[in-house]
Amino acid sequence: MQQVPYYQEAFVSFLNSFTVNRKPESLYNPINYILKLGGKRLRPVLTLMSAELFNCNYKKALNAALSIEVFHNFSLIHDDIMDDAPLRRGQETVHEKWDLNTGILSGDAMLIMAYQLFENYSPETFQALAKLFSKTALEVCEGQQFDVDFETRDDVTILEYLKMIEYKTAVLIGAAMKMGAIVANASEEDQNLIYDFGKNLGIAFQLQDDYLDAFGDPKTFGKQVGGDIIENKKTYLYIKAVEFSEEDKKTELMHLYSLNTKDHSEKIKTAKQIFISSGSAKATQNEIQNYTSKAFLVLDKLHISEENKEALRQFGEQLMNRNV
Amino acid sequence: MQQVPYYQEAFVSFLNSFTVNRKPESLYNPINYILKLGGKRLRPVLTLMSAELFNCNYKKALNAALSIEVFHNFSLIHDDIMDDAPLRRGQETVHEKWDLNTGILSGDAMLIMAYQLFENYSPETFQALAKLFSKTALEVCEGQQFDVDFETRDDVTILEYLKMIEYKTAVLIGAAMKMGAIVANASEEDQNLIYDFGKNLGIAFQLQDDYLDAFGDPKTFGKQVGGDIIENKKTYLYIKAVEFSEEDKKTELMHLYSLNTKDHSEKIKTAKQIFISSGSAKATQNEIQNYTSKAFLVLDKLHISEENKEALRQFGEQLMNRNV
Repeated sequence: MQQVPYYQEAFVSFLNSFTVNRKPESLYNPINYILKLGGKRLRPVLTLMSAELFNCNYKKALNAALSIEVFHNFSLIHDDIMDDAPLRRGQETVHEKWDLNTGILSGDAMLIMAYQLFENYSPETFQALAKLFSKTALEVCEGQQFDVDFETRDDVTILEYLKMIEYKTAVLIGAAMKMGAIVANASEEDQNLIYDFGKNLGIAFQLQDDYLDAFGDPKTFGKQVGGDIIENKKTYLYIKAVEFSEEDKKTELMHLYSLNTKDHSEKIKTAKQIFISSGSAKATQNEIQNYTSKAFLVLDKLHISEENKEALRQFGEQLMNRNV
Repeated sequence: MQQVPYYQEAFVSFLNSFTVNRKPESLYNPINYILKLGGKRLRPVLTLMSAELFNCNYKKALNAALSIEVFHNFSLIHDDIMDDAPLRRGQETVHEKWDLNTGILSGDAMLIMAYQLFENYSPETFQALAKLFSKTALEVCEGQQFDVDFETRDDVTILEYLKMIEYKTAVLIGAAMKMGAIVANASEEDQNLIYDFGKNLGIAFQLQDDYLDAFGDPKTFGKQVGGDIIENKKTYLYIKAVEFSEEDKKTELMHLYSLNTKDHSEKIKTAKQIFISSGSAKATQNEIQNYTSKAFLVLDKLHISEENKEALRQFGEQLMNRNV
């Protein structure tokens, strides 16, 4: 197994050869636009890495990797419409640069194109990839809908929240890795193990994202620290703090999250204090550790070389240390 | 081969057993809602009919037929958003009854579910169905985008218009029939012949829809006669009339189609007069006949029983006489 930048480079060069030249341009230009916006290409890299973990040349997995990336970008276009987001990776979102209808229709076309990329494989592999893809894609839709529903609810439980981030984010990480294993003809046991590795690491990563949103270093976090608090987003930190707090602190926190204040810094400071004093910050760190350990547990069971196990462990640690 | 009502009934009873019980309900209720809104179920009926033409019990084709219907309803949800349509089959559209986000996300989920229905077939059949489905679905998106683009253009040619209705409407009719043939293990030659039959009949049907919109009997047409004229829709009738007319009539027609008048009856009357006097009405009738003949030409080449050929011919005639 190679290092991440190796696979990133291979993937981006494959992606660049993919420019869609079909008509009408009004449908396909937005697709080429979003696919070239950049990003770390983490999901397709995981597919390539996973194929090589199981002794298959990553080149065989390029179409599956591209399918994952096309799907991910489809979901970004439609999510950006739903969130009314003006920017994506510092550039205009598709529905801003073009319009709502273009965003809907170009997104739809990408979802179909993601399936078409599996046509490069044999019927058995095609069906295995497409089945996994459909199951995962539907879960991503369900996760997105849970997230939307949670905005107007104030009784979301930790279990519901964990299921939401599992569906919205983590299953696609698991599926990206399982696709590499499918292309590599790994055993079903290994396919499921690598899926669990990816899914649990994905949950840990998302929980860490919640944690760093409040407690991260503004210099390295990449997003605005406190953004979730400003937007009253009920993350793991918030739900646990409500659960752990006495009545008065609970009321204070819920009141704080009903406001759209102008002075963000005071709000952020108070919320963070309650996250710490209630024990929620610590509980979140524990949960991150739980899911990370769960992911690493599969390492012992995988039928891959010790060298590859070590490389996978290092990758997982790099990812959780945000060095990828 | 049985008559249409037989397959309609079989399909609707299969559809009724399909109610999706997954969570979140906010994602799946709109899906159950639109699938139960009714309609003639023409596309899935064609899949079932086609399977039986090739000596395969229609029951084997029910999942493919349902996939076609789920896809068709996905496209209705997203098209209704783009057209800002309040009603569908006399009931509220999904984005009206719920909201924009629900319309987008429930539609996305339906597109994925359409693929999942192929999982009930063997890997070879699965791949053949999914490949045809992806190609067709992408063409439907392209057709919809051409239609959107044409609204703001006044130089659309007849060839472009024919391609638009082929993609937006006819390829799905062809694909519905080809899926029945795939499930029935018909030869590739027969698969392609029945596809051409469906596609050409679909184009003829859509052109006839354009024609009847202006010249149909208000009692039997089902939609508001003159609706396309009121909405300045550049159908075959309009494009041909512009092409055939002298400069003064051409200017008059183009001016008429730049207005949003309140007195519809005068506008409709004038437009229809120009459609007739320019020869466009006659040309449209000829084109309908051309595509119908093209469809019926494949009957001689199909490797099916004479009895089934006769049944298929009768079905085609019923459809074009709007008795289905």
